[in-house]
Amino acid sequence: MHDYNPPLRHMRFVLQELLDYEAIHVLPAWSEASPDLVDAVLEEAGRFAGGVLAPLNRVGDRQGCRLADGAVTTPEGFPDAYRQYVENGWNGLSCPPEFDGQGLPGCVATVTQEMWQAANMAFALCPMLTAGAIEAIHRHGTSEQQALYLPRLVSGEWTGTMNLTEPQAGSDLAAVRARAVPEGDHYRLFGQKIYITWGEHDCAENIIHLVLARTPDAPPGVKGISLFIVPKFVPTAGGDPGERNDVQCVSTEHKLGIHGSPTCTMAYGEKDGAVAYLVGEEGQGLVYMFTMMNEARHKVGVEGLSISDRALQQARAYARDRVQGRPAGSSSSEAQAIIHHPDVRRMLLTMQAGVEAMRCLCYYAAWCMDLGREAADGDQRATLGARADLLIPIVKGWCTELSVELTSLGVQVHGGMGYVEETGAAQHFRDARITPIYEGTTAIQGNDLIGRKTHRDGGEAIKALIHEFRGDAEALRDIPGLPHLCEALSTALNGLETAADWVVAHHGEQPAASAAAAVPYLMQAGYVIAGGLMARAARRAHTALESGTGEKAFYEARIVTARFYMEQLLPRAGGLLPAVLAGDAVAQTDASVLD
Amino acid sequence: MHDYNPPLRHMRFVLQELLDYEAIHVLPAWSEASPDLVDAVLEEAGRFAGGVLAPLNRVGDRQGCRLADGAVTTPEGFPDAYRQYVENGWNGLSCPPEFDGQGLPGCVATVTQEMWQAANMAFALCPMLTAGAIEAIHRHGTSEQQALYLPRLVSGEWTGTMNLTEPQAGSDLAAVRARAVPEGDHYRLFGQKIYITWGEHDCAENIIHLVLARTPDAPPGVKGISLFIVPKFVPTAGGDPGERNDVQCVSTEHKLGIHGSPTCTMAYGEKDGAVAYLVGEEGQGLVYMFTMMNEARHKVGVEGLSISDRALQQARAYARDRVQGRPAGSSSSEAQAIIHHPDVRRMLLTMQAGVEAMRCLCYYAAWCMDLGREAADGDQRATLGARADLLIPIVKGWCTELSVELTSLGVQVHGGMGYVEETGAAQHFRDARITPIYEGTTAIQGNDLIGRKTHRDGGEAIKALIHEFRGDAEALRDIPGLPHLCEALSTALNGLETAADWVVAHHGEQPAASAAAAVPYLMQAGYVIAGGLMARAARRAHTALESGTGEKAFYEARIVTARFYMEQLLPRAGGLLPAVLAGDAVAQTDASVLD
Repeated sequence: MHDYNPPLRHMRFVLQELLDYEAIHVLPAWSEASPDLVDAVLEEAGRFAGGVLAPLNRVGDRQGCRLADGAVTTPEGFPDAYRQYVENGWNGLSCPPEFDGQGLPGCVATVTQEMWQAANMAFALCPMLTAGAIEAIHRHGTSEQQALYLPRLVSGEWTGTMNLTEPQAGSDLAAVRARAVPEGDHYRLFGQKIYITWGEHDCAENIIHLVLARTPDAPPGVKGISLFIVPKFVPTAGGDPGERNDVQCVSTEHKLGIHGSPTCTMAYGEKDGAVAYLVGEEGQGLVYMFTMMNEARHKVGVEGLSISDRALQQARAYARDRVQGRPAGSSSSEAQAIIHHPDVRRMLLTMQAGVEAMRCLCYYAAWCMDLGREAADGDQRATLGARADLLIPIVKGWCTELSVELTSLGVQVHGGMGYVEETGAAQHFRDARITPIYEGTTAIQGNDLIGRKTHRDGGEAIKALIHEFRGDAEALRDIPGLPHLCEALSTALNGLETAADWVVAHHGEQPAASAAAAVPYLMQAGYVIAGGLMARAARRAHTALESGTGEKAFYEARIVTARFYMEQLLPRAGGLLPAVLAGDAVAQTDASVLD
Repeated sequence: MHDYNPPLRHMRFVLQELLDYEAIHVLPAWSEASPDLVDAVLEEAGRFAGGVLAPLNRVGDRQGCRLADGAVTTPEGFPDAYRQYVENGWNGLSCPPEFDGQGLPGCVATVTQEMWQAANMAFALCPMLTAGAIEAIHRHGTSEQQALYLPRLVSGEWTGTMNLTEPQAGSDLAAVRARAVPEGDHYRLFGQKIYITWGEHDCAENIIHLVLARTPDAPPGVKGISLFIVPKFVPTAGGDPGERNDVQCVSTEHKLGIHGSPTCTMAYGEKDGAVAYLVGEEGQGLVYMFTMMNEARHKVGVEGLSISDRALQQARAYARDRVQGRPAGSSSSEAQAIIHHPDVRRMLLTMQAGVEAMRCLCYYAAWCMDLGREAADGDQRATLGARADLLIPIVKGWCTELSVELTSLGVQVHGGMGYVEETGAAQHFRDARITPIYEGTTAIQGNDLIGRKTHRDGGEAIKALIHEFRGDAEALRDIPGLPHLCEALSTALNGLETAADWVVAHHGEQPAASAAAAVPYLMQAGYVIAGGLMARAARRAHTALESGTGEKAFYEARIVTARFYMEQLLPRAGGLLPAVLAGDAVAQTDASVLD
């Protein structure tokens, strides 16, 4: 009952029917990534996620991680599962082939990420962080650094971490104080970093830390921050783990959730200073971090999707099993499974529609990222690259905020059982709660959305998307059961345009008002853009039904969930618009009101 | 920083300025409950809540309860705090004077309940359950039972429990199987009850269980269920705890939150059968339970308010203390406390406005309950009694659902720190999560609201309230800063009337559609009715300002939070209306859509 079964049919529907997968496959970089090959990869990934990773999810929650003498012991079964993950080649799925990666498109890797994270979110954080280290070194490292670190990071034999936060430097990285002092061909790094995910563990023979620190005489603020590689074991010239470096895990956090993921406080340079290697140029650390953030933020948004689907699968299984009472309107006097009770049905449909909408949004953003980098046509690259940039903070902010609500519904479906830890529903609720916080809080995503992604281009990217969705709204008129929703979606699109206009008009002159409106605007954008994609999904399903299909029930269900989304979730966007437009009132409110 | 400080000024504002407290005080039953006396009681209660109960909240969460050999050990400090609670006379505050209670109005007791629950929700559950037992015996017990049990339950020397749920009988109590077999002047009771709050503990010398069970040959379903008193120690004729009864705590639950409250599985009659005394008549058990439910559900709604205010106080203190980054729009280049960052301000104002709105709703419902029972005028009793009945499921459902969101915001304000258990913000989030589940899930409240409270009177009670609030909406036109919100509130009131009309029209003929709409309708009603009360509160504040007051800042702040509520929270009601009206679509959706 607690197993996780990757919804492969749903995943393929979005990846290969909603999205124009052919636009990816025609490109030289991905000519080998045929739909058939992708299907085979996803099926195999599904088996690994469901069979190996998922059963360890509860174990990880119960046992957590233990720190003793600087060494972290991960939960029982984690090291072995990680070994299998590496041996099966899952780590390098979308990594560059020149470093032994398999070079699959990011949108395909997104599907496997959904699986890993749904199966075992705490475990999946380890490869997620490694991917960030790979990207940093691949984009900004020297060819020597790439040759030394990338093969083993890509294979997953070594793992990576991101070291940004310090006690006084959280959302504001300008306050970073860690120091890196030059010494010959390397630096010596000193300082403390907190909240380091998988900062120390027993699953790999080496850990490659990417660390933000200041060089001597660096200017204050963000321009004085550089990025360094600090390996746990300094590699020998031959690439084997060499001498133990001066970096230690000094404590781990006792967290609300993701207990299987060690969250470490790392002490650098408590002896002679940790040997550190500069990545790229001095002073560019934060710039490099930002170039990696799109990937990382997208992945955390996918976590919101993943954990919600995991919660849905568990709640649905319970609702099918648990017999209680006679449903309202039932013609029988017998007690029935609670899935037949209207409000349980409503909760499960909310989760289902929310999960489908998140999946559309996450995969669509990944597709835009792929084509924004690799499309043959420069205009297409520019347009879809800008669209990907627009969507990233929405994917991160909206999916994660929604995941807190949907995993909470997962608890509610279980009634009193949901509050009992043994049931497992509460774990998803606890695990989900980190996602709106790390990799930039929802407020940070909102600020990115209003500033760099909406104001800077005068609203061009978001309006282009809104314009496209007007066509999808119109198309609802031709789908049985949905014509009445054309107006609902059109109204929501107009509302989003109004909000975007407001942001463009206010961001420059009234930055505080704009910042106060940022999160409501982000949430509104999430509901509306996902709504546009759900309408498009309904259109695809309708087309499949019209042209005759052997999967009538599947496609009909997609129209039902699209309808549910537009009747029950999309209208929230209308409730958010007044909050956006009231940003100035919030900005002008004095803190003393809270006395 | 983690201390709880009861917001006495806010509490008095609602109790004595928003509500017509004089209407209570003029009644013979409460002629001694003068505003001055009430103030003195509340100040003293505030000292006890903040000084004695609040410091034990974290202790309770960390230590939890331990079961060994059938005995439950509560967290360190709980037994002593409970002893003080009893000695100071807090338990009998609104209990009948003939049993040594102090006979204060329920609306005053509601304020102290807010304090106990905010200070230490796990602890406060113990007297909450005792109050239920007192009410059951006072309303339905014989005079002998009253004389034997009430004095020590009212004093709190003995505590009470409610035993309803069995593994197969949760929301559907018709499925109760526990048996009670007559034996002379008593019964012998056999069966297992689960989720029994404070079912066993070390804080009182006796525990009086109120238990639902079936008598032999009772008809199936709800009409065969009777209510029994089962004392842990059977009292002697002199009223002292006598022989140990055949009832045992056989396990306690490992829960998401409220760790300081023992949640017990109780086994009755594992030997000869537990000595049990029938309350009232056979077959009336569920009827008696329902007469008590209004009180209990109201109290759980107040828990939503309480835990949200506790979370707000902690988040606000952190936001004032934590310095991080330069706020958007700030003229200074210095980092500032995060309370000055617009989105943190927005989150705290959401919590503050939400808490104020819940407080208005909870106290107002208590005031209606008081006058619904005691008003001299029969028409007023009928009108306000019906209004209280209408409000109870909304208080329970809306405040508890909102508390999950607001305690989640409390976590978010803390950023990464919020996810670390030591911070304490996560405890409130975990504790809050039980409130939409126990004492009837939100769906159960929704069913009550659509059926007994809306359809049965053809919408009369809710429309009378909507009509009253139209006057409050109009009055916004005269309050500086608020005239633009007259239309917003009027629209919301019209939307609620539309929803109520829909419920009245559909409930009889399309019960499944109505049931699917129940929770969205309940949430809509909560936002709108609380909005009406916030408008009324703004009007009172405006009047105070107009007439000259020494508390200018306090009253001005009430207008600001009312505005915030109506701009940011009330519009959600508009987003819920389409969900209500789509109830039929949900009801007609086949479960196979979830495959």
